[in-house]
Amino acid sequence: MPEHVNRQYTLARRPEGHARLSDFRLVEGAVPDIGAGEVLVRNTLFSIDPYQRSLMGNGSSEWPTIAIGEPMGGPTGGVVEKSDHPDYAVGDYVQTWSGWQDYAVSDGSDLRLVKEESAPLSSALGPLGLNGFTAWYGMTKVHEFKQGGTLVVTGAAGSVGSFAAQLGKLRGMRVVGIAGGARKVAFLKDELGLDEAIDYRADDFAEQVKQALPNGIDAFFENVGGPIFPVLMEHFNTDSKMTICGTISDYSDAELPHGINYLPRLITIIHYRFLSIKAFATPFVMDTFPEFLSEVTPLLQSGRIKYREEFVDGFAKLPETLMSLFDGRHSGAKLIVRAD
Amino acid sequence: MPEHVNRQYTLARRPEGHARLSDFRLVEGAVPDIGAGEVLVRNTLFSIDPYQRSLMGNGSSEWPTIAIGEPMGGPTGGVVEKSDHPDYAVGDYVQTWSGWQDYAVSDGSDLRLVKEESAPLSSALGPLGLNGFTAWYGMTKVHEFKQGGTLVVTGAAGSVGSFAAQLGKLRGMRVVGIAGGARKVAFLKDELGLDEAIDYRADDFAEQVKQALPNGIDAFFENVGGPIFPVLMEHFNTDSKMTICGTISDYSDAELPHGINYLPRLITIIHYRFLSIKAFATPFVMDTFPEFLSEVTPLLQSGRIKYREEFVDGFAKLPETLMSLFDGRHSGAKLIVRAD
Repeated sequence: MPEHVNRQYTLARRPEGHARLSDFRLVEGAVPDIGAGEVLVRNTLFSIDPYQRSLMGNGSSEWPTIAIGEPMGGPTGGVVEKSDHPDYAVGDYVQTWSGWQDYAVSDGSDLRLVKEESAPLSSALGPLGLNGFTAWYGMTKVHEFKQGGTLVVTGAAGSVGSFAAQLGKLRGMRVVGIAGGARKVAFLKDELGLDEAIDYRADDFAEQVKQALPNGIDAFFENVGGPIFPVLMEHFNTDSKMTICGTISDYSDAELPHGINYLPRLITIIHYRFLSIKAFATPFVMDTFPEFLSEVTPLLQSGRIKYREEFVDGFAKLPETLMSLFDGRHSGAKLIVRAD
Repeated sequence: MPEHVNRQYTLARRPEGHARLSDFRLVEGAVPDIGAGEVLVRNTLFSIDPYQRSLMGNGSSEWPTIAIGEPMGGPTGGVVEKSDHPDYAVGDYVQTWSGWQDYAVSDGSDLRLVKEESAPLSSALGPLGLNGFTAWYGMTKVHEFKQGGTLVVTGAAGSVGSFAAQLGKLRGMRVVGIAGGARKVAFLKDELGLDEAIDYRADDFAEQVKQALPNGIDAFFENVGGPIFPVLMEHFNTDSKMTICGTISDYSDAELPHGINYLPRLITIIHYRFLSIKAFATPFVMDTFPEFLSEVTPLLQSGRIKYREEFVDGFAKLPETLMSLFDGRHSGAKLIVRAD
């Protein structure tokens, strides 16, 4: 590390598609001074994560991006070099979000003290940092994933996916991991002990999925998005739960991916806007019918809810009346056939 | 009504696409007798609903269909003609599911007594039947739809949609209804008093949607499906809730609708399998981070959760290390750049 110089990688321009070297600029400046109550951190470890592409802009993300000329963002691990803060002493290891620069000044609010005797500093950027947390939260707080069910994890060899898959195993689920390439598949089976691992690049991917999911999917941990999802979604069981925490496959795409295919777009919207989608059907929820009647009957009687009925006379008219619902000219009124 | 004859419309064949007259067969038989504890119902009202197309098979539904030769199914209203059941007397009005036939024998378990002084029998097939119940359940039990938010209802002029839209108004929401044709739009605005109503067949539909949703969509009641959804989904706000209770636009389609467009297929799967999809992102849920650390740190220390790290040395390697995440050859290990 050069003495007395603060190197920064700043954002030179927003990428077209994937990031390129020319999208960054290496800038050298003075090491900043600290003021009252502040801490100077020297970054020693820089976490590299897919969502950093999103921070650069021109991608699918709908969240704030880094301004041109600002240092590239991301979690870092570092050591306290100077401190006027009561909670941090020189030599302390900290995890922070100071981005791609040697030095950063903090008022302490963004620092997390890391005790190296408990776990190495690097783990605060991975399994005990946002990667592990993402996996844990998605497996714990979003849905209740039931013991004994089948969990599918995409991006299963990655920092987030491999954590989610292992949590699934620890919680008594059958876990099927999806990843790209033979090496990752071997890692998932041999090292993580997943029940099945499938290479999404395989020619017979759809067939392998079918073989690996004889009892379908009960839980789906999605952190990839993109074109393999349609193959997997066919295997959802009734009452399946799906958690979306990432769509790396389209982080670099500003345009609607895959032409007129709106499915990746919906997944992206769900992801960035925390959409919650559920469905139901009345045969399965009839226990609430009495509650419905008691609330709604007075609304009808008082005219606060209006309804329209259209009567068709004659038993023989049943088929054509049903067909009239689908020809686009029906008024929308409730259709009832009266027996003759 | 012919005396002593039980007319039935049975399913002659499963339709190709929309139902046709030749898919039904009119059969005449004897009026059935009742046994001990049974009731003979003469159907006087037959409910006509879009999901009846699904019952015929060869459509998008994944639920059981009617067997060929069986009477077409559906809710009916009728009058008790004979009774050996203590709860039902001759002349009572009942709502049942005896399908397209003049007479049906019941053990009473499928009958609902309707007091005509409270509401007309026909309403037991509509607003006080499954139509109203569907609207109420979707607006009440699936998600919490918040007062003051904007609710979009598709199929808003229909029996279910118009009910859901009115419940939305009664609950203090701003309601935008989508329907087909000027007559329905006028009904939604003038008679139901919705805040906005839009004709999805209009050439400038997307522009009208934009104008009608200056504050986006907070709640979405979907009972149509199909190609207008992609236009609407762009307007979802953060934390929006979507309830799917029907996909009438593809009830008649056995094939994947719209070529390679998988979005309608996903909506159909959500609909029939009660899929629940949610998303999250860590910046918004950091309050649970301490809980995560206390659960997961021991798992890491004991080796019950494994993780891989890959270190790259040199501050100058930051950009290319980030880019390596997207070239498809990355091992999946946690990437960390170490400062030099």
